Amino acid sequence: MQDAAKLAHQIADGQRRALARAITLVESARPDHRAEAQALFADLPKGREALRIGLSGTPGVGKSTLIESFGLKLTAQRLRVAVLAVDPSSARSGGSILGDKTRMEQLSRDPNAFIRPSPSQTQLGGVARRTREVVQLCEAAGFDVVLIETVGVGQSETMVAEMSDVFALLMAPAGGDELQGVKRGIMEIADLIVVNKADGDLKPAAMRTCADYMGALKLLRRRVQDPEGFPKALMVSALEDRGLDDMWEEIKQLANWRKEHGHWAARRAAQAQHWFDEELRLGLEALLTGTDGTRALVAEGRKVVADGTVTPAEAAARVLKHLQKGAKSTVNAG
Amino acid sequence: MQDAAKLAHQIADGQRRALARAITLVESARPDHRAEAQALFADLPKGREALRIGLSGTPGVGKSTLIESFGLKLTAQRLRVAVLAVDPSSARSGGSILGDKTRMEQLSRDPNAFIRPSPSQTQLGGVARRTREVVQLCEAAGFDVVLIETVGVGQSETMVAEMSDVFALLMAPAGGDELQGVKRGIMEIADLIVVNKADGDLKPAAMRTCADYMGALKLLRRRVQDPEGFPKALMVSALEDRGLDDMWEEIKQLANWRKEHGHWAARRAAQAQHWFDEELRLGLEALLTGTDGTRALVAEGRKVVADGTVTPAEAAARVLKHLQKGAKSTVNAG
Repeated sequence: MQDAAKLAHQIADGQRRALARAITLVESARPDHRAEAQALFADLPKGREALRIGLSGTPGVGKSTLIESFGLKLTAQRLRVAVLAVDPSSARSGGSILGDKTRMEQLSRDPNAFIRPSPSQTQLGGVARRTREVVQLCEAAGFDVVLIETVGVGQSETMVAEMSDVFALLMAPAGGDELQGVKRGIMEIADLIVVNKADGDLKPAAMRTCADYMGALKLLRRRVQDPEGFPKALMVSALEDRGLDDMWEEIKQLANWRKEHGHWAARRAAQAQHWFDEELRLGLEALLTGTDGTRALVAEGRKVVADGTVTPAEAAARVLKHLQKGAKSTVNAG
Repeated sequence: MQDAAKLAHQIADGQRRALARAITLVESARPDHRAEAQALFADLPKGREALRIGLSGTPGVGKSTLIESFGLKLTAQRLRVAVLAVDPSSARSGGSILGDKTRMEQLSRDPNAFIRPSPSQTQLGGVARRTREVVQLCEAAGFDVVLIETVGVGQSETMVAEMSDVFALLMAPAGGDELQGVKRGIMEIADLIVVNKADGDLKPAAMRTCADYMGALKLLRRRVQDPEGFPKALMVSALEDRGLDDMWEEIKQLANWRKEHGHWAARRAAQAQHWFDEELRLGLEALLTGTDGTRALVAEGRKVVADGTVTPAEAAARVLKHLQKGAKSTVNAG
């Protein structure tokens, strides 16, 4: 694995082509590529940490415009910024129609920025693994901030929150009664609610919406990993570049507080354990589709339990027994 | 397995002691008991179906009073009624302080009623399996109605809904703004929202609450398995025995409509497949705690991923590799 050591060195040295090559390894489904990726991780420098910011928002809320303005603001401060996208729909559509680099034209030309579109994989589990590993590669490559962006659909926001140090939810100005529509679970994982489009005609609505969120957030129980006043709602205009400095200050304040109070490291450890559990779960489930025999037995099980001729417990026991026998017969054959 | 055939015959014959013995088998964790239970299920008469009614409500909402009144109403119509309780807290407390039979004094003395308290098991998965299998035993024993009762906590309501033909949610009268507090997911699985305590001082509040729920239910998308007007909210007083006939009529109407339109059987088949998937999941997870070696490796995995020295994917891969090796070494030793 001398190659892995060399690649690790190049990544640590900040070479973009090495980073891109490593990401290709990480995204690959080929077993030899996965083995190379694992060897690479063992060789990467430890201890380099970026600030991982998760950002979620529904389509049309102005995510790209905000990331472009926000990212340029950070690179202007000589910070190196990586932007990763997690698009749960890319599995079906094979990627967004407008590429991420088209969406963020100026930022994509910035030498201190690195933009990576969403991988197209069939399973959200696969997307989660790839994104987590790319975050680690970006940290090893010396990026100061890793922005992980997702649309607010299904499980993808929870997934991104579970790999972020700070999680922000981007919202559009709305009528008062729409507030209820925000999923309760999301309010509970958001550190910041950022109301965008506080410009032109929408400004009064944005102010009202922001006030509504402030009120709603006050009703939530304060979390132990939060300083006074968090989670917080604030108002920005990505278009007119207003409020973004405040947003950055709030993020830094929260991150620093968590570092000083021991919650930063604890949060990262808990997240790693969460992903370990998820990987185990996915790995175990993969056993059920591993061979034709098992797949047939699972299909048969679904049929007989639907008929009511076999109880679910008994049908499942048959599959599990077969799985264990399968492992044995592999040995006998070998 | 001649014993199983005999026991099956006695159950089909409506012998209560045989039913109680079978439930003991089903609740047992002993492998020989589980084998006996499986043999028993193979011998039970097929095709006997009860109406399975799920009923959920938080403590204090008047569940016991309602079940007592409602159950007596059914037995008065010569219907045989089984009442099963699912108490997710019984795992810790070792059962409710007031036994179920104390809570429903008259019904428990009724020869056409059969009341079975919640089993105390450490895992909700175990409780689910046991309850499902007891439902099947009660059907084989010729009960017409099986009432599955649970408190509205955590996963237990979803679990009960997944084994019911009709699912009712019992609510107390509330102030208008408390309506938001109802978990959205619950509104989506309830067939009936029953507002209890429509008596005395609380009657006006009950009427308001019922109207609020009617309004809220109208906002939900109509489900294909529902006739016009469902899900529905209605008002009862378990204490004064009012509205319970209506409640029974609504339940029968819904059940008959679903039978006539093919949704009844489809729903039961889908539920059986859901439980098959759950049993598979639990069985696979049990592999992780099956041996000291695996448990140690999982603990080690949780440690190294928290340290950040090994990626979650790599740590999980190690455990999964060990699991397969474990099955192999069993063979080599044997």
